[in-house]
Amino acid sequence: MKILLTNDDGINAKGLAALRDRIKEIADVIVVAPETEQSAVGHAITLSDPLRVREVERDGEFIGYAVNGTPADCVKIAVRAILKEPPDMVISGINLGANISTNVIYSGTVSAATEGTILGIPSIAVSLATFINPDFTPAASFAKKIALSVYEKGLPEGTLLNVNIPNLPEDKIMGVVFTRQGNSRFREEFDKRTDPRGHIYYWQGGEMLFYDEDRDADSGVIRNDMISVTPIHYDLTDYKFLEELKNWEIK
Amino acid sequence: MKILLTNDDGINAKGLAALRDRIKEIADVIVVAPETEQSAVGHAITLSDPLRVREVERDGEFIGYAVNGTPADCVKIAVRAILKEPPDMVISGINLGANISTNVIYSGTVSAATEGTILGIPSIAVSLATFINPDFTPAASFAKKIALSVYEKGLPEGTLLNVNIPNLPEDKIMGVVFTRQGNSRFREEFDKRTDPRGHIYYWQGGEMLFYDEDRDADSGVIRNDMISVTPIHYDLTDYKFLEELKNWEIK
Repeated sequence: MKILLTNDDGINAKGLAALRDRIKEIADVIVVAPETEQSAVGHAITLSDPLRVREVERDGEFIGYAVNGTPADCVKIAVRAILKEPPDMVISGINLGANISTNVIYSGTVSAATEGTILGIPSIAVSLATFINPDFTPAASFAKKIALSVYEKGLPEGTLLNVNIPNLPEDKIMGVVFTRQGNSRFREEFDKRTDPRGHIYYWQGGEMLFYDEDRDADSGVIRNDMISVTPIHYDLTDYKFLEELKNWEIK
Repeated sequence: MKILLTNDDGINAKGLAALRDRIKEIADVIVVAPETEQSAVGHAITLSDPLRVREVERDGEFIGYAVNGTPADCVKIAVRAILKEPPDMVISGINLGANISTNVIYSGTVSAATEGTILGIPSIAVSLATFINPDFTPAASFAKKIALSVYEKGLPEGTLLNVNIPNLPEDKIMGVVFTRQGNSRFREEFDKRTDPRGHIYYWQGGEMLFYDEDRDADSGVIRNDMISVTPIHYDLTDYKFLEELKNWEIK
């Protein structure tokens, strides 16, 4: 089995190193990841600037390829230009911070796995639900397990798995739940400031608002010390409303 | 009625001006748009750089606000920091180029309308299906019509309309079809080159592969000289596969 690893925190991120260490046990691993952190880039691709690919070594060992682009760029250029044949799987992560609920749409981690799926490759996004004191070891172990399950069972065309793991020792993780994308979302706030030249600028920030406490949604599960696995796809059609819309007359 | 207009081609784009001219006939219009072209940014938001807002005049008339960010940034900062109260509607466009099928996920135009929807505001993305010799007039007329329909009937929470209009005179447009997101997609190619210093770089490019010719998909409809209106939402859950997934055991 040959697995392409990528992320949005950049080729030097600890989450990627932890993932690589465990996935190496079950597959030939190739890393193609952004040069720099690419958080909140959504599903951006780079069309107006040239892309460069750099071979990266660490302690004399070849680690992978760094690309001056987004996570989606990395998967595309890996499959279309770097690799001789497509990998059997794409795993994106391990992201520092959860990718759950509405926030999934801003996620570079998820966009990389989505890109793998569009290219016809079974793909998984893996995120650790913390920004502080991360321990990637349990998450990497689970990534290995779910990669084996996906390899064995496959995924439907156009569907990927979005996995979020609580930042806990393995024996404190209370199970795995297959979930829907929840309705929790980021409530953005803009911090208005004046620069030294007297000009106004804003910092975008805010906090997560948790709306789902129930055990069928990713955010509810993660807050209850369990792993959430959400199948997501890129067909955004609202089929239910489409039926109603067919009765509209636009004059 | 108060309508927020934005786009991903930038505040000086002709498609935005054409949209503004028609929407002014039915609503108070406020424009908050990117300073520069932001195509293929997907649903990116700017967290690591400060955002600046510039008041823009043209021929002595106040046109709107330019933001050094993405389309999603523009909608967020408009609603949360610039406007005193939320608008009744967000319209994003008129984009130069179709936003159909799988390509919707890369679309800054659609991401702006999605952001409006997340903020609880009925939202519409409007794109003109051409890159050459655009005539935005028929598209702007249709945008006005569908804005009136949306104002009258409303949209479900979490759902927006993604509208694509062929580049034809109004009397040559063969109708309006309510569609699903199609399966056509971009086939990317990487053009490998060597720079003057002898270093390799790549240009990302490619072409659209049309898989849907049928009249229920956006791409099929647009190719048959009709307007497609696709209801899309940001709940990416694959509910069908979720049921199957619940039988998985991850060892």
